[in-house]
Amino acid sequence: MNKNRRENPMDRRPDLDSIRAAHDRIRPHVHRTPVLTCAAIDGLTGARVFFKCENFQKVGAFKVRGAVNAVLSLADDAAERGVATHSSGNHAAALALAARIRGIPAHIVMPHTSPAVKCAAVEGYGGQITFCDPEQAARESAAAEVVRATRATLVHPYNDHRVIAGQGTAALELIEDVPDLDAVLAPVGGGGLLSGTLLSVKALRPAARVIGCEPALADDAAQSLRENRIVTARPPTTIADGLRTALGDKTFPIIREFVDSIALAEEGEIRHALRLILERMKIVVEPSAAVPLAVLLNRPLGLRGARVGIILSGGNVDVSHLPV
Amino acid sequence: MNKNRRENPMDRRPDLDSIRAAHDRIRPHVHRTPVLTCAAIDGLTGARVFFKCENFQKVGAFKVRGAVNAVLSLADDAAERGVATHSSGNHAAALALAARIRGIPAHIVMPHTSPAVKCAAVEGYGGQITFCDPEQAARESAAAEVVRATRATLVHPYNDHRVIAGQGTAALELIEDVPDLDAVLAPVGGGGLLSGTLLSVKALRPAARVIGCEPALADDAAQSLRENRIVTARPPTTIADGLRTALGDKTFPIIREFVDSIALAEEGEIRHALRLILERMKIVVEPSAAVPLAVLLNRPLGLRGARVGIILSGGNVDVSHLPV
Repeated sequence: MNKNRRENPMDRRPDLDSIRAAHDRIRPHVHRTPVLTCAAIDGLTGARVFFKCENFQKVGAFKVRGAVNAVLSLADDAAERGVATHSSGNHAAALALAARIRGIPAHIVMPHTSPAVKCAAVEGYGGQITFCDPEQAARESAAAEVVRATRATLVHPYNDHRVIAGQGTAALELIEDVPDLDAVLAPVGGGGLLSGTLLSVKALRPAARVIGCEPALADDAAQSLRENRIVTARPPTTIADGLRTALGDKTFPIIREFVDSIALAEEGEIRHALRLILERMKIVVEPSAAVPLAVLLNRPLGLRGARVGIILSGGNVDVSHLPV
Repeated sequence: MNKNRRENPMDRRPDLDSIRAAHDRIRPHVHRTPVLTCAAIDGLTGARVFFKCENFQKVGAFKVRGAVNAVLSLADDAAERGVATHSSGNHAAALALAARIRGIPAHIVMPHTSPAVKCAAVEGYGGQITFCDPEQAARESAAAEVVRATRATLVHPYNDHRVIAGQGTAALELIEDVPDLDAVLAPVGGGGLLSGTLLSVKALRPAARVIGCEPALADDAAQSLRENRIVTARPPTTIADGLRTALGDKTFPIIREFVDSIALAEEGEIRHALRLILERMKIVVEPSAAVPLAVLLNRPLGLRGARVGIILSGGNVDVSHLPV
């Protein structure tokens, strides 16, 4: 990362100005997603819930916000060498799309065990896939080799200030649409979305609480706050497959400074919340996106009667095998 | 029905005025559903497709439009005796909600084999369920007995001019939002939605073609037009379970007079279209709602480059077992 940091002198913690700049930068290329409400879910939660629908976002997830901001922020000389990442998830497709927008190559390192549909998505956006073994070490060394060979810029899925600033634009739009929120709930995996959400909400609506929501089976963020160090990810057992990663050294300090609390949801609670969103809102979301509603339904947060924003992070899920 | 007809002198074929009156009547009680587009589906169809999202409607289907119009159209003396129907589907829940809006009883005859979730929906809206054997004859005689005992007004799911006028309000809104459509595609089961759609579209946008879409395994509407008589429904084998019914003596004449064509979709085509809507639009629809897209993707309709409206009829489906 040292080389990239030298090439990107703007690599300081984002503030509201950088999130607004990110918003201006990405706005022509991403959707302004709708904010939906659901009377049935309001009845069940006792709150008035405003869902920011990033499942309707391009590539089906908020990840495109950070990826597009990172790619469009690159200096021309760095940009023309392309970008790279190792990811089998939404960030891979998001980075491929971001690179196509800028007209530069995207080198995506993916485990050869990746589902064909995910490879097809990356290729559909013009990404160039390098396959590797599925272990983390193999993925990192394959990515390092790609970067060495191409001199592409590595864009991390979350531990990158340009990415964090991009993810913060979702909460920025949510607060523009619903200014008087009492709380915002966002899922936390690597912490990119939660960091960006915190920076936006605490700048624009300091009175609002921000609660990070994670599966009890992937409670590394809660542990990290308790132990004041980045606790490594637990074995990937939760159905909320987007939230299995540990915090990074750029997301952890932001979360530690600003978050009001981290709340946990059990697997059964996540399944139930997912079913509610599918059945009552009639929209498709991935299990990770259901974690904040699972928290709101089951943890005592003191939000009865409150106006609560929830960021539905994405909608990429195998609809043949919904875990409900 | 004779008694009801005497009680409802307005029982003549609806025209644009009656559909506008229905719209004014139901507007405070139903959602104005959004019209969504999807670049990926435009690419696959070669058309510009505008989806009228009745899956987001109250009770999860367009049926509430017709039910609310019928119930709010009743004279006070008839209304206070309540309404009744025999249905295990969306119309049952829709009529229960409509009755609750007016503050009158709804007597719903349902087969004792109905899924618990459907009974719960009816009861959730305050409907009073009478269980019966699942055969059609048993359902009709149970409904007749309920009507005899309560003097409630029977509200048919589709063969009723007030219901047809209500269903026509979906296309009315679609054309208000997208005035320059070249064609509108709607599913056809009993023909309530298609009849109402025809009356709205042919009055407001005569140049637009209207195509009724049905499963090849439930092609009774196509047969009825060919044979110029109402052909009875085929065995209920299609996954598009909302489209298994035959036309009625009020819907058939409207369809015969105005429809441009009836087009068929095979089961595999319906499954594929359903998957596309779930995966690409990230919204939940029932199999019946996917039939028009299945037709547009697979039949040569001459609509390349055209602006096509599709009415997504509803979103009530078992999300644990999506047929994709």
